[in-house]
Amino acid sequence: MLIHSIKELREKVKTWKAEGLSVGLVPTMGALHAGHKSLIDRSVKRCDRTVVSVFVNPIQFCPGEDLDKYPRTLEADEKLCEGSGVDIVFAPSPKEMYGEGHILSNDFLTYVIPPYFYVDKLCGKSRVGHFDGVCTVVNKLFNIVQPDYAFFGEKDRQQLIIIKKMVNDLNIPIEIVPCPIVREDSGLALSSRNKYLSDEDRVNALALSKILFNIKACYKKGVNDCKALFETAYEYLNESHSLEYLEFRDADNLEEKTTADDNTVVFIALKIGNVRLIDNIMLGEEC
Amino acid sequence: MLIHSIKELREKVKTWKAEGLSVGLVPTMGALHAGHKSLIDRSVKRCDRTVVSVFVNPIQFCPGEDLDKYPRTLEADEKLCEGSGVDIVFAPSPKEMYGEGHILSNDFLTYVIPPYFYVDKLCGKSRVGHFDGVCTVVNKLFNIVQPDYAFFGEKDRQQLIIIKKMVNDLNIPIEIVPCPIVREDSGLALSSRNKYLSDEDRVNALALSKILFNIKACYKKGVNDCKALFETAYEYLNESHSLEYLEFRDADNLEEKTTADDNTVVFIALKIGNVRLIDNIMLGEEC
Repeated sequence: MLIHSIKELREKVKTWKAEGLSVGLVPTMGALHAGHKSLIDRSVKRCDRTVVSVFVNPIQFCPGEDLDKYPRTLEADEKLCEGSGVDIVFAPSPKEMYGEGHILSNDFLTYVIPPYFYVDKLCGKSRVGHFDGVCTVVNKLFNIVQPDYAFFGEKDRQQLIIIKKMVNDLNIPIEIVPCPIVREDSGLALSSRNKYLSDEDRVNALALSKILFNIKACYKKGVNDCKALFETAYEYLNESHSLEYLEFRDADNLEEKTTADDNTVVFIALKIGNVRLIDNIMLGEEC
Repeated sequence: MLIHSIKELREKVKTWKAEGLSVGLVPTMGALHAGHKSLIDRSVKRCDRTVVSVFVNPIQFCPGEDLDKYPRTLEADEKLCEGSGVDIVFAPSPKEMYGEGHILSNDFLTYVIPPYFYVDKLCGKSRVGHFDGVCTVVNKLFNIVQPDYAFFGEKDRQQLIIIKKMVNDLNIPIEIVPCPIVREDSGLALSSRNKYLSDEDRVNALALSKILFNIKACYKKGVNDCKALFETAYEYLNESHSLEYLEFRDADNLEEKTTADDNTVVFIALKIGNVRLIDNIMLGEEC
C-alpha cells in the first residue's frame, strides 16, 4: 500500500501495534536496487509488518550535490516492494515532512546533530552538514513510524555507525539491524549512483572493491601495519581515479587505527569523472 | 515508587501500555514546589499514570552557572509526589543518562539543537547552549518514558515554545500541555531559585510581576505601542535591579513585536544581586 500522509501512516501502524505485531522500517531514498531488497527481505523475514520509506531528503544534500538529478523511480520502487511482501511504502512529499513557507535551515528547524568526532572525517569531511540532515530525517521517520527494528546497509557504514550512536545517545527504543553490502559478481557494491556510470567508468569503478579485497587478503596473511596495507592500493589506481580517502578506523567509534585488528574497517571514497563512489570492508569478518 | 534505572522504568511503562493506560510525564530538575505540583496535579488528573522525572541535567548548565549548588531535595520531592498520586519518580544518575568515560560535549554526544532563531534571544542570549541541553535531555526523557502527554510550565515560556517546536519539527508523538505560572500572593512567580533570595531580595523581586501586571493593565486600557509599554517599567526599578531584558514577542514563533496584540508575550529577566529571575505574561489571557 502506498501512503503519502504522516497521519494515515500513523493510523495504520497504530492498528498493528494494537494487535501486538512487530514493525520493521527500511528508510530509503528510493531508486531501489538489490541492495535495498536485501534490507527489505530481512525486515519482512524478521518483523510481522514492514514499512519502506521512500524520501529524497533535501536537507542531507549539500550545495552543488545531486538533489535535483537524484534518481526518482517511485513506480518501480512500489512494484519491488509489493513483490517483496512490504506492507506499506511511505512516500511523503518534502512539504509533508518539513512543512512549507520557511527555509530548511538550522535557523528555523530543529536538527539532530551527531557528535563532531563522528562527522569530521570520511564522507563528513567533504559533505558538510550531510549527517546532520541524515540524523534529523531518520529521527523524524523513527518518530513517525515508531518501528521496533530499523534496517540500515553497511554500504553507508559511517552513516550506520552515526545512526547507532544517535539511537544510543538519545535512548531511542529501536533496534538497529546492520545489513551486509550487496555486490555485483564483479565486486562492485550496489549503489543508486552506479546509474551515473558510463561503461568505461564501470570498469574503473572495480578499483574500490579490488583495493578492499586485497587489503583484507593481506591482513588475513598477517600484515597489520595500516601504512603498509594502504600502500597496496596504488597498483589498482590509474589516472581515471581521484582518491578522496582510504582510511583504517574502528568499527564502533571511528577512531583511526595505525595497527589493524578484526574490528578495523577500511573505508574508501573514489571519484571517477563526476561520480563519487564509496565502499568499505570489515577486516575481521568472514569473506 | 522511586526508580533510578532506565531499564526498570521502561519495563514498568511497558506493562501500563499493554493495559492501554495513558501516561503523563512531568520533567523536572527536582526541588519541587507548588509550581511543579500544579503540573503534577494536571497530569494525575488527565492521565491514567504519571511519571515525574527528577534530574539536574548537567548539559543545560553553562560554565559559571549554579550546577553544583542547584538545590537537590530528592527525599522531599518523593514525598510531594507520593502525596499527589504520582506513580513513578524517575531519578536517574548523570551516569545512567549519559554513560561515563567521555566528555559531555557535542564532540562525543548526539545533540538535539533547536532553531537558531528561537535561541538567539531572551534567555538563550546569555545562556549559550542552554536550550541545546534542554532539548537533548527532554528528547531523551521522551524516548525513555514514551508518554502520551508531557507537562511544561509557562514560567519557562521560551523553553515551552522551543519544546513545542521540537515536537513539531521532529514529529514526536507526544502532546505538550502548557501549565499556567503559579504565583505567591505577592505576585512573585514560584521558582526553585527563589531559595537563593534574602528577605530584602524577595521584596525587590516583586518588581518582575509588578512590571508585567502593570504592562498588561495598560494594554487592556488600550495602549499597544510596545515602546510606550516598555517605558512603564522604569517606575518599578531601583538600584538593586539589573535588567537583563524586557521584550515583547509573539507567543508562537518569538518574533519581536512593535505593536502588542493578544498573542504577545512580555518576557522579563532581572538580576537581583547574584540571583537571576525570569517571568512573563501573555497579554491576551484573562487575569
